[in-house]
Amino acid sequence: MELGHQTIQEQFEDVISRDHKLEIHEFLNSQNISDVADLINEYDDYAVQIISTLSTNRASSTFKILDFPEQKRIMQELPPLKSAELLNALPADDRTAFMEELPVEVVRELIKLLEPEERKITLALLGYPEGSVGRLMTPDYLAVWEHWTTQEVMEHIRHFGKNSETVDVVYVVNDHGQLIDDVRIREFIFAPPEKKVKELVDGRYIALNANDDQEIANQVFKMNNRVALPVVNDNNILLGIVTIDDVLWVANEEFSEDMQKIGGSEALDEPYLEVPIVKLFQKRAGWLVVLFIGEMLTATAMGYYENEIARAVVLALFIPLIISSGGNSGSQASTLIIQSMAVGEVTLADWWRVMKREILSGLMLGTLLGIIGFLRVILWAQFIPSSYGEYYMEIGITVGLSLIGVVLFGTLTGSMLPLLLKKLGADPAVSSAPFVATLVDVSGLIIYFSCAYLLLKGTLL
Amino acid sequence: MELGHQTIQEQFEDVISRDHKLEIHEFLNSQNISDVADLINEYDDYAVQIISTLSTNRASSTFKILDFPEQKRIMQELPPLKSAELLNALPADDRTAFMEELPVEVVRELIKLLEPEERKITLALLGYPEGSVGRLMTPDYLAVWEHWTTQEVMEHIRHFGKNSETVDVVYVVNDHGQLIDDVRIREFIFAPPEKKVKELVDGRYIALNANDDQEIANQVFKMNNRVALPVVNDNNILLGIVTIDDVLWVANEEFSEDMQKIGGSEALDEPYLEVPIVKLFQKRAGWLVVLFIGEMLTATAMGYYENEIARAVVLALFIPLIISSGGNSGSQASTLIIQSMAVGEVTLADWWRVMKREILSGLMLGTLLGIIGFLRVILWAQFIPSSYGEYYMEIGITVGLSLIGVVLFGTLTGSMLPLLLKKLGADPAVSSAPFVATLVDVSGLIIYFSCAYLLLKGTLL
Repeated sequence: MELGHQTIQEQFEDVISRDHKLEIHEFLNSQNISDVADLINEYDDYAVQIISTLSTNRASSTFKILDFPEQKRIMQELPPLKSAELLNALPADDRTAFMEELPVEVVRELIKLLEPEERKITLALLGYPEGSVGRLMTPDYLAVWEHWTTQEVMEHIRHFGKNSETVDVVYVVNDHGQLIDDVRIREFIFAPPEKKVKELVDGRYIALNANDDQEIANQVFKMNNRVALPVVNDNNILLGIVTIDDVLWVANEEFSEDMQKIGGSEALDEPYLEVPIVKLFQKRAGWLVVLFIGEMLTATAMGYYENEIARAVVLALFIPLIISSGGNSGSQASTLIIQSMAVGEVTLADWWRVMKREILSGLMLGTLLGIIGFLRVILWAQFIPSSYGEYYMEIGITVGLSLIGVVLFGTLTGSMLPLLLKKLGADPAVSSAPFVATLVDVSGLIIYFSCAYLLLKGTLL
Repeated sequence: MELGHQTIQEQFEDVISRDHKLEIHEFLNSQNISDVADLINEYDDYAVQIISTLSTNRASSTFKILDFPEQKRIMQELPPLKSAELLNALPADDRTAFMEELPVEVVRELIKLLEPEERKITLALLGYPEGSVGRLMTPDYLAVWEHWTTQEVMEHIRHFGKNSETVDVVYVVNDHGQLIDDVRIREFIFAPPEKKVKELVDGRYIALNANDDQEIANQVFKMNNRVALPVVNDNNILLGIVTIDDVLWVANEEFSEDMQKIGGSEALDEPYLEVPIVKLFQKRAGWLVVLFIGEMLTATAMGYYENEIARAVVLALFIPLIISSGGNSGSQASTLIIQSMAVGEVTLADWWRVMKREILSGLMLGTLLGIIGFLRVILWAQFIPSSYGEYYMEIGITVGLSLIGVVLFGTLTGSMLPLLLKKLGADPAVSSAPFVATLVDVSGLIIYFSCAYLLLKGTLL
C-alpha cells in the first residue's frame, strides 16, 4: 500500500474521483474533524457533499469549526432536510455563535427548522446580550440533586452522559435548582453506592453569571484551572455551562478585532486572504477617509502660519519631526492602555492613576527627545554653519521645548482617549494609533508655532 | 452571623488581626484559590505568610496563577525549606514557566532544591526552545499499555490518578512507548473488566510535537475540542501532555505582547499599573528614540527642498497631510498583516498573494484620498482665491498624485515589512505602526517633492 505516503488531499482527490459513496464515507470517517474541515476549506465545490456524507454528529463537529462565510454557504446549499438535521445536531452554544452573525430574517427562518426543545434553548440563549457569558452557554451538562445517592448519580450518568459536552464533572443543585457545588465524576466512581451526594459536597465552586462579560470568563478560566464552569443567574439558579475551548475561540477573535481596530481599520470578520478585495477596501477606506479629513486641519493650521514660514523657511524643516514624535508617543500610550483594558488590568476607575503616570512618563520621554532634538540642531549648526543661520541657538531651544510639549500632549491624549471612549460606551480599541496620531498632528503644529512665536519674535519672526 | 455580608478582604483583615494560626488556616482553606491569589496581590506584606499557611498542594495551585514579580518575591522571602517544598510541589509545566523568566544563575540554584526525579523533568523541559510546546508540557498524565485489560487500567488509575492534571483521559502506548490512542476513562468504567485496551482503541487521536510552536497548540486546541493533548517527539514517543488552560495563558500573554509591540513599546511583562515608572520609561524610550532618530531624516530631506519651499511656501502647507496619509495607510496594512500572521491565516509562503492584494488596495485607497485631496485644493481656491494663487490647479494635481504614490508606498511597506522581518527570523510585531509611519514619512516627502518638481517646474518652481 502506497497510501501512507499520500497527503490527505491526494487521498481525497483519489477517493472522490472514483465517486463511490461508501468509500467516500469511510475515508471521511477515518479522518480527524480538523482535517475534514481543512478539506472543506480547500475543496469548496465538495463542501456540501462532504458535510452530507458525514454522520450528523461528525457533521456538526466539523461545521462548528468552519469559518462563518463557509458555514453560511453550506447552510444555504444543503437540502432543507439536511440543514434542519445539522442545525438540530449543533451544540446550542455553537448554534448561537453561528446565528448571531446572520441577519435577523434568516435567523427567524432557521429557528423554524428547530425541534421545539432546541428552539426554546436557542431563543433563550439569543436573549442574552452580545458578548455576554450567556451567549457561550450550552445546556448539555449533568446536574444531580443533593439528596441523591452515588448509585442514582451513576445511573443518571449512564443514561444522559453521552450528550453532555463535559461528562467529567456533575453539578449539584438543591431543591430550588440553585447550584451548590461541582463534583468530578471520578469521586462518585470511588465512593460507596449508598453514599449521599450531600456528603461529597465541599461547597467550594466557581460560577459565572450569564450576564457577565465574556472577558470575565477568560479571566476566571485563566485563574482557576477548570475546563468548564457552571453559569448561574442572579438568584444562583444553574442555567448551563461554558467550556474553556469556547473561551479560547472568543479570546482569539477578540484579539484579532482589537488589533485590526488599533491599526485603524474595521474588524474584518474573515481571514485576510479570503476577504474579497472590494470588501477589504471598504473596511479600510472608512477610517482612512475620516483620518484624512481630520488631517486636512493641518493644511488649514499651516495656512495660518504661512507668513511665519515664508519669513523663516527653516521652521518648516522640523515640522515632520515634531508632529511625528507626538504621533508616535500617542500611539504608544493608547496601545498600552487599550491592551491593559482588554486584559482587565486597567479599568475606568483607574483613570487618575493612569493620568498621573502618563504626565510623568510624557515629561520624561519629552525631555529625552527634546534634548536629542536640541543637540541635533546645535551640532548641525556647528558643522555646517549654513544650515540654520545665526539664530541656531533659538531654533534649537524652540525645537527642544516644542518636543516636550508635543510628546506630553501625545501621551496624555493617547492614554485618556481609550478611557474616555469606554466611559462613553464606545469600544476603546477605536482610539487607534492612526486616530491618535491625527489628533496629535494638528495640536502639535499649534504647539510648535506657538513656541516659535514666543522664542523667535523679534529675531527670525 | 454577619460574615456573609463582609467582603473577603474584610474577613481576611478580621482574621489576620486576631493572629490565630488555626483560624487563618481554616479561613484560607475555605476560599477559592483565585480569591487567595487576589488576597496575596492586595496584601503584599502577608503574601509569604499566606503561602506558608496553605497546604503544599493549594500553595502550589495559588503560586502558579500569581504574576511573575509576585512569584519571584515570594520565592525569595520564603524560608529555604518551604521554598524547596513549594518548588517540588509545582506542576512541572508551571515550574518551567516560572523558571524561564529567571536569570540563569537563579535557575541553577533553584534546580538544586529539587528532588532528583523533579530535577530530571525540569532540566528536560527547559531543554526545549522557548515558545515551543515542550515548555508547556507536564509529565503528570496516565499512560497504559495496549495489552492491558480494563481491570488493570482501573487499578492503575486508582493508584496514580491523584497526581495527574487530567485524569479523565488515558493515553495508550505500544511496547516501544509510541502513542497509539487516547481513551476517555469513562469508556473503561462501562467496559467489562477483562476487555483489552487494544479493543477500545480507534486510532483516531491528535498529538502535538514537542518542538511545535505554541501558536500551533493554540490552533489545534481551537479546532479539536479537547481539554488536553498528548505531546510526542519525532518518533511518536509519548513525552507528556499539554492542557488547554496553559494554552489560554499563552494566548493571553502573546496577545498582550503583540499589542504592546505594535504600539511601539517593548513588551511590559507586568500589568501596566504595577510597572515601576522608571521601567515604564525605559521600555518606551528605546523605540521612541530610535524612531526619533529615524525621523530626523525628514529634517535632512526637508533641508534639500529648502529652496523649493522658499520659492513656493504653499507647498509646505500640505506636508503634514501627505506624509500622515502614508503613515496611516502603512500602520493599517502592517497591523492587518501582523494580526493575520499571529493567528496563522497568513504565512511567508503567501507573500506574493499579499503583495498583489496590497498593490490593488493601495491604488484604490490612494486614488480615493487623492481625489478628496485634489478637490480640497480646488474648492478652497474657488472660495478663497487668495489661498493658493494662480497655479492652484497644478498644486491640486500635485497633491492628488502624491497621495496616490504615498498611500501605495505606505500599504506596500506596511504589508511587506512584517513578512520580511519574519523571513529574517525577527518578530513581525516589531514592525509597529509608529515604525512603519516613520519609514513612510521620509519617503513620503521625497515622493511629494518629486511630484512637485515634475509638475510645477517652470511655473511655481
